Amino acid sequence: MREAMISATLRAFGQTAPGRPLEPLDLPDPGPLGETEVEIAVDHCSVCHSDVHLLDGDWGEVARPLVPGHEVVGRVLRAGPAATISEGAVVGLGWQAGACGVCAACRSEREHLCTGGKVRTCMGRQGGFAERVRADARFCFELPGGLDPATAAPLLCAGLTVFSPLERLGVRAGTRVGVVGVGGLGHLAVRFASALGASVVAFDPDASKRELALALGAGDLVDARAPLPRGVVDLLLVTTHAALDWNAWMGVLDLEGTLCLVGIPGAPLTLSADPLLDEQKRVTGSVIGSTKTMRRMLAFAAEHRIAPVVERMPLASANEAIGRVRDGRARMRVILDRAPR
Amino acid sequence: MREAMISATLRAFGQTAPGRPLEPLDLPDPGPLGETEVEIAVDHCSVCHSDVHLLDGDWGEVARPLVPGHEVVGRVLRAGPAATISEGAVVGLGWQAGACGVCAACRSEREHLCTGGKVRTCMGRQGGFAERVRADARFCFELPGGLDPATAAPLLCAGLTVFSPLERLGVRAGTRVGVVGVGGLGHLAVRFASALGASVVAFDPDASKRELALALGAGDLVDARAPLPRGVVDLLLVTTHAALDWNAWMGVLDLEGTLCLVGIPGAPLTLSADPLLDEQKRVTGSVIGSTKTMRRMLAFAAEHRIAPVVERMPLASANEAIGRVRDGRARMRVILDRAPR
Repeated sequence: MREAMISATLRAFGQTAPGRPLEPLDLPDPGPLGETEVEIAVDHCSVCHSDVHLLDGDWGEVARPLVPGHEVVGRVLRAGPAATISEGAVVGLGWQAGACGVCAACRSEREHLCTGGKVRTCMGRQGGFAERVRADARFCFELPGGLDPATAAPLLCAGLTVFSPLERLGVRAGTRVGVVGVGGLGHLAVRFASALGASVVAFDPDASKRELALALGAGDLVDARAPLPRGVVDLLLVTTHAALDWNAWMGVLDLEGTLCLVGIPGAPLTLSADPLLDEQKRVTGSVIGSTKTMRRMLAFAAEHRIAPVVERMPLASANEAIGRVRDGRARMRVILDRAPR
Repeated sequence: MREAMISATLRAFGQTAPGRPLEPLDLPDPGPLGETEVEIAVDHCSVCHSDVHLLDGDWGEVARPLVPGHEVVGRVLRAGPAATISEGAVVGLGWQAGACGVCAACRSEREHLCTGGKVRTCMGRQGGFAERVRADARFCFELPGGLDPATAAPLLCAGLTVFSPLERLGVRAGTRVGVVGVGGLGHLAVRFASALGASVVAFDPDASKRELALALGAGDLVDARAPLPRGVVDLLLVTTHAALDWNAWMGVLDLEGTLCLVGIPGAPLTLSADPLLDEQKRVTGSVIGSTKTMRRMLAFAAEHRIAPVVERMPLASANEAIGRVRDGRARMRVILDRAPR
């Protein structure tokens, strides 16, 4: 019955050449579903800065048409015979849509670090700015009760990206966490860190974000352009993609503190050895998270009623949404909703 | 009785001006002993590369005469009224000779990270190239039975410097540890890591060190100038003080591995963000260790019969010893012995 509802072509918004805006496209149907794949009817897809990087060519040339979108919430239309999720389930899909399953990372529950052929939802594949999207069912996650599907989409990439290092680096009651950048990732980092019991200070050059940051659980919002306070946090989560004065930010850490990148700076880091040695500080980074972490993050968000702060637009306004994200005007994440069916 | 044996002046080897060789000096007696201080009759003092850095002006101008030496083994001649070590005890003294005792680091058993006025044995103070040296008794350590005082001196700085990060970063059976540089620090790192149960690979450009590295517990010695193997260790302990191609060395780490500096590179590190993010690798450093770590290190060395590989010279040959360390010719550490009393 459902099969009959699926059109022979696939309506999507995509970029046909570098520099061009997104345009409505009718893509050929992608053919038979894989054994472990599901096909999701996209209800909501939010815009991540990674989509902008892809569209703007920051990460090199990619297959065209480029249909971005990797923060998807929708309903499973069809499931392959070996898929672990059933038709009708309301699921989320993030940046990762598959993995080799056999490399050391996959075998140690770190599929997000897969070295044998990780699959990205909208890199070399058609992403979520479309009526339907496919992924390996292992990377689709049933939304727990208590999460509103209408606002959950940003959790699938942004939420996971900030929750994973907060958990892995041991944030708990009493940890002092600094969040650099109050945006799509940063606002969720403030909220998650606060819910984990940390005392949180947010850093942003835009003082108009103060009220929001405090409402999300930050104890303070510090002007990121002013002289930075020294030795005040144990963990600094850098959610911006700017190349910063890394040594100045290392100074914000207390002894043995950790600076963790989750944004992707466009240039190599230049770091003095002194804070690494004399203060035993650490520099690291984090990329999305494992499937187990994703499940814990979704359950934690449901339990603590963590909802992304979003703007909403119809999918047809994808170019406007992209522009808002590119220019840092999104407050805090833009969700594109499907046209009424 | 002992007091009568202590001369009014103090014989030492020191540098009176930058660039000059060490020369025998009769220093004025340093006066009354502090409440918590001990005075140690130096029996053995080994040469650390930090001594060479100080003598060569690499760390800026220092008080003269500069009497180096901070890997000391000797006997307590006199103890202040509040000192916790008694006269006659055979003790070791390392790079740290005092701390404020009240800062957050001191109050959390991390005196080596003291921010309130840490005291370095031979920086702005007279070090161990002398007949006697003073230090706060809290930073003097009775040698456990089973450690030979004649060879233990290098443990007090080099041993602590490598043991502390191996322990702190969780090296245990099965950990794959790479040690960059088989020298004063590196040879002890190989030995400690191996005794902790790690599988160890040493990296050095000098193939003549292979036999020694293997005898100390390394599974292999890899030519550090050749193309480096990729993804083979969990922890890379960098014991050299050269500025390396950091991105190449990051590649030697497996996923989520840690590069830890214990040598002091002369230039900032330039690091690609990719291995930090996509492979969740870490960069950190370590400096000496806490007093608790020192005690654990000494006990561990005694239990596992870990003895530094040393050459011996009389204190009068201090300049020759310094030259050997400066030129990388020491195998592996040079201990200066006091003249027979």
